[in-house]
Amino acid sequence: MVTKARLRALIDAASGRKKADLCITNAHVLDVYNKEWFESDILVSEGYICAYAQKGKGEASRVVDAGGRYLVPGLIDGHVHIESSHATAQEFSNLVVPCGTTTVIADPHEICNVCGLDGLSYMLDASQDTALQAFFVVPSCVPATTFEHSGATILAEDLAEPLKHERVLGLGEMMDYPGVIAASDLVVDKLIEAKKAGKIIDGHSPAVSGSELDAYCASGIHTDHECETPQELQERVRRGMYVMLREGSACNNVLGLLGGVHERNSRRCIFCTDDRQPISILAEGHINNNIRLAVHAGLDPIEAFCMATINSCDCYHLTDRGAIAPGLRADFCLVNDLSSFTMHQVYVAGELVAQDGLMLKPAAVRHDSRVSGKMQVRDFSAARLALPLQDSHVRVIDIVPGGVVTEAGEATVPVKDGLWVHDAKQDIIKLAVIERHKGTGNVALALLRGYGLKGGAMATSVAHDSHNIIVAGDNDADMEKAVNHLIAVGGGMVIVQNGQILASFDQPVAGLISYEDGATIAENLKRLHAIAQEKLKVSKDVDPFMTLCFMSLPVIPAYKLTDMGLFDVRSFSFVPLELNR
Amino acid sequence: MVTKARLRALIDAASGRKKADLCITNAHVLDVYNKEWFESDILVSEGYICAYAQKGKGEASRVVDAGGRYLVPGLIDGHVHIESSHATAQEFSNLVVPCGTTTVIADPHEICNVCGLDGLSYMLDASQDTALQAFFVVPSCVPATTFEHSGATILAEDLAEPLKHERVLGLGEMMDYPGVIAASDLVVDKLIEAKKAGKIIDGHSPAVSGSELDAYCASGIHTDHECETPQELQERVRRGMYVMLREGSACNNVLGLLGGVHERNSRRCIFCTDDRQPISILAEGHINNNIRLAVHAGLDPIEAFCMATINSCDCYHLTDRGAIAPGLRADFCLVNDLSSFTMHQVYVAGELVAQDGLMLKPAAVRHDSRVSGKMQVRDFSAARLALPLQDSHVRVIDIVPGGVVTEAGEATVPVKDGLWVHDAKQDIIKLAVIERHKGTGNVALALLRGYGLKGGAMATSVAHDSHNIIVAGDNDADMEKAVNHLIAVGGGMVIVQNGQILASFDQPVAGLISYEDGATIAENLKRLHAIAQEKLKVSKDVDPFMTLCFMSLPVIPAYKLTDMGLFDVRSFSFVPLELNR
Repeated sequence: MVTKARLRALIDAASGRKKADLCITNAHVLDVYNKEWFESDILVSEGYICAYAQKGKGEASRVVDAGGRYLVPGLIDGHVHIESSHATAQEFSNLVVPCGTTTVIADPHEICNVCGLDGLSYMLDASQDTALQAFFVVPSCVPATTFEHSGATILAEDLAEPLKHERVLGLGEMMDYPGVIAASDLVVDKLIEAKKAGKIIDGHSPAVSGSELDAYCASGIHTDHECETPQELQERVRRGMYVMLREGSACNNVLGLLGGVHERNSRRCIFCTDDRQPISILAEGHINNNIRLAVHAGLDPIEAFCMATINSCDCYHLTDRGAIAPGLRADFCLVNDLSSFTMHQVYVAGELVAQDGLMLKPAAVRHDSRVSGKMQVRDFSAARLALPLQDSHVRVIDIVPGGVVTEAGEATVPVKDGLWVHDAKQDIIKLAVIERHKGTGNVALALLRGYGLKGGAMATSVAHDSHNIIVAGDNDADMEKAVNHLIAVGGGMVIVQNGQILASFDQPVAGLISYEDGATIAENLKRLHAIAQEKLKVSKDVDPFMTLCFMSLPVIPAYKLTDMGLFDVRSFSFVPLELNR
Repeated sequence: MVTKARLRALIDAASGRKKADLCITNAHVLDVYNKEWFESDILVSEGYICAYAQKGKGEASRVVDAGGRYLVPGLIDGHVHIESSHATAQEFSNLVVPCGTTTVIADPHEICNVCGLDGLSYMLDASQDTALQAFFVVPSCVPATTFEHSGATILAEDLAEPLKHERVLGLGEMMDYPGVIAASDLVVDKLIEAKKAGKIIDGHSPAVSGSELDAYCASGIHTDHECETPQELQERVRRGMYVMLREGSACNNVLGLLGGVHERNSRRCIFCTDDRQPISILAEGHINNNIRLAVHAGLDPIEAFCMATINSCDCYHLTDRGAIAPGLRADFCLVNDLSSFTMHQVYVAGELVAQDGLMLKPAAVRHDSRVSGKMQVRDFSAARLALPLQDSHVRVIDIVPGGVVTEAGEATVPVKDGLWVHDAKQDIIKLAVIERHKGTGNVALALLRGYGLKGGAMATSVAHDSHNIIVAGDNDADMEKAVNHLIAVGGGMVIVQNGQILASFDQPVAGLISYEDGATIAENLKRLHAIAQEKLKVSKDVDPFMTLCFMSLPVIPAYKLTDMGLFDVRSFSFVPLELNR
């Protein structure tokens, strides 16, 4: 909220009674409201845009010649899980601001599944002073299902307090769409809390359609970022949803959805990344990557910028940004050209914060005890990894390359002394999920086919959505060592072979996030990726850790493994490993 | 706010577990988000739209065959002074709902200038149960200027409480644009109050442009309904304003502005009436009249409907209406055709409330003591109407037909015994403003040319913006009688000739509003209009009472008369009647 003194100073500067702080001259300026470029100097005072001035005539303490570049509002990511970058909020800011992203709506679903609402508080604090303006939604689905143990439970009654925060815009993606459609008591209570607070509710409705989609929308859910086809986009837009065209590291929907976007409905379309890793951000960019892809596929650049700015503001009722207009925050970018969509300069509240891809004053990371040491594991040892089988004809999780869906496989495997034994001729290894939040002592086991791994183990504490420890391997000793390493360092990723740690990458913040900078995180992920493929022979058809971390997600078919056992998502029930039991 | 029980029932109906209350079948349904017509049954439950259904297949307790008509969301008037209709909020609802208007954003500027915030409370109460959903803004300019006495003063510190009301959306049109541009203390305090409450600020910036418009917008002002040209529209849209295309009884801007509206900027354009009398509403309609004019001039009907519905919702952050979509209020109209834009049926919260131009259950008017008897006149008599002149060369207010602007005229008039005397050969009569709010005893006098009046007096307590009593006449006796009549009945309009009341129309609510229904009000206004022209020979170039009531408005050039004297708007100062003083 602007103070009275600042508002008066702003009006004084606009009226010419006071010199402006900054003037951007010689730029093509985007007018998102009339959807046109115009030629004007732009004056800034008190961190806000205060006035236009005739080109070349603007007076200010500092005049910046844009060199004929394009001046556009700071870009907005409509939905992102910062944790998926493995970076802190500070380092995430350092990563995406040079790409032109100045505002995000972040859903701390991952960290809250580990730390509960402390995770939200931590994210709010960590993003307090970053150049990136981070707004949040309170995760709606903690735990994601009742078929697993997570670190916390967030109920409707817990929502009122966080929903009051000025940077909390609403309730996070309501993934429990069956619960919404069934008007389940617990779900409706949460929706009502958001409505009482006058705040928005984000959606998540993959492949929901017809009267089920009507019911989902009737509940007041406002957005969806799980659209796959132009037809799905248009049926959601018709029902009043804002639809997000997502371009993450794994999920890529911009090109698939663009056919459903036209000038008459584009105001209800916005961009997001959802889950995007530093490797992708550094290589291709962030929301400017969504824009580039869309424009190269034929979208008018002005429409693309509107989808990345004012439309998101309309969606989230952000009234102080999203355009180059008097009275709005001076968050804007100088775009080099309308093909690369790289940024020459990025300004936040009138301050130059990034130039030619580099942050001028990177935000400093702070350690925080609320989210550290989240490893409450009980009774774990190699003995717990022994897999008893009463029969050799078993269910196996069959990896489907390139996605997070699995198939419900069957196999005949060797059994010795009542225990499964690894057969080097079969591409079948052991998968274990070790509960790490509540000290339940749960260790669940299953068999995984198609991963390729030979002679070692790989483990991570990033395992959607409850983020227990997941480990895959062909021998119990390496698996034990990998798990124990993660417990010791507070989480992360590790590769073990012949009793030796070949590589590891610590993620001590909730077992999800590293304190390193984006480039270091990218290097670590690349290094582990290479070692997994080269030394452990993980199949080149899969992303070693990304695949692993989705093997525990019990809302995506067919078989998944939680800390409570092998889960058949199709029947929404646990199943035994043996087919004949 | 929907309750939990109703939300569950709504979702149950959408999901088919519960029968819907209402189904509209056989209609072309407007999708304002994709901007297209579609063919679907529409199901309603609990007063909300709950689902679409295949055409002809929708099941509900009541099925309505639309006969191939057009189903559109209830229309919205973005800015209206209900008082200008001389009707109560209840009768205003009865007037406009049959035209398809189901929501208005009303600025009770007139009644608050008489009654202060009691005027707002009264309007909120009067509109509590009407079919018309009335939202309000708190008037920002009471009194309108410091050069007159009004019934109240509303300061920044008075705003916080009314701004909390759920039907109060923000601060009313900030007419003191010089005060905004100058960053005047009192004005900025009011803007800050609205911002603190997180609410919007309406604008009023006739002919403001360039850096002054920048300053006005930098202050956070959000709308304008005083645009006159396509260029003005586009420069306001560029600065983030929502621009209203106004079609009132006197001010008609739809056709003049339409040239500035195109598919790329139409989302920032909305419709309003501002001031519209029952005669116009009954003859031509309300917001459907704006639509008709725009479409006949070439605008795509879908764009026109969007400007009358979803765009206004975006502007005022009304998230529960504005489209035919699940989860939104079942406020909608069946439009007979896309040429007349008359309404076959109008539904509010799923109830049929108007059919073929008639309200089914007209709202009942309630008398209210808070706004009655607003006549605190002291020391008034014919003697106070005597006009002393030291010189015969005087300033006169020259009427300019067809508007509210006057010219600064000069004349030589007869003076006898130090007093002005009427000369039947000159079209110059006496104008008086009698203060009626605070018992100051103020009576101010001036001379008026071009009105045509002969042999009598006309008076009204509707006199912008302070609404003192204004009277014009060629003899003091008739003028006295007219004024005394208004004092006796609590305000209204009256015509006196030869000591006889020829016609009168009581407006006991604040001296502005009648308790009669719209048709009766229209008849009264027509009758007085005819008598003024026929019996008192008021010029056919002017609207007798409308012209009179603007002669006291000290913000429109050139000469105007307030209770404090003759005012030169060009110099913003009082001037004597005599030119040589």
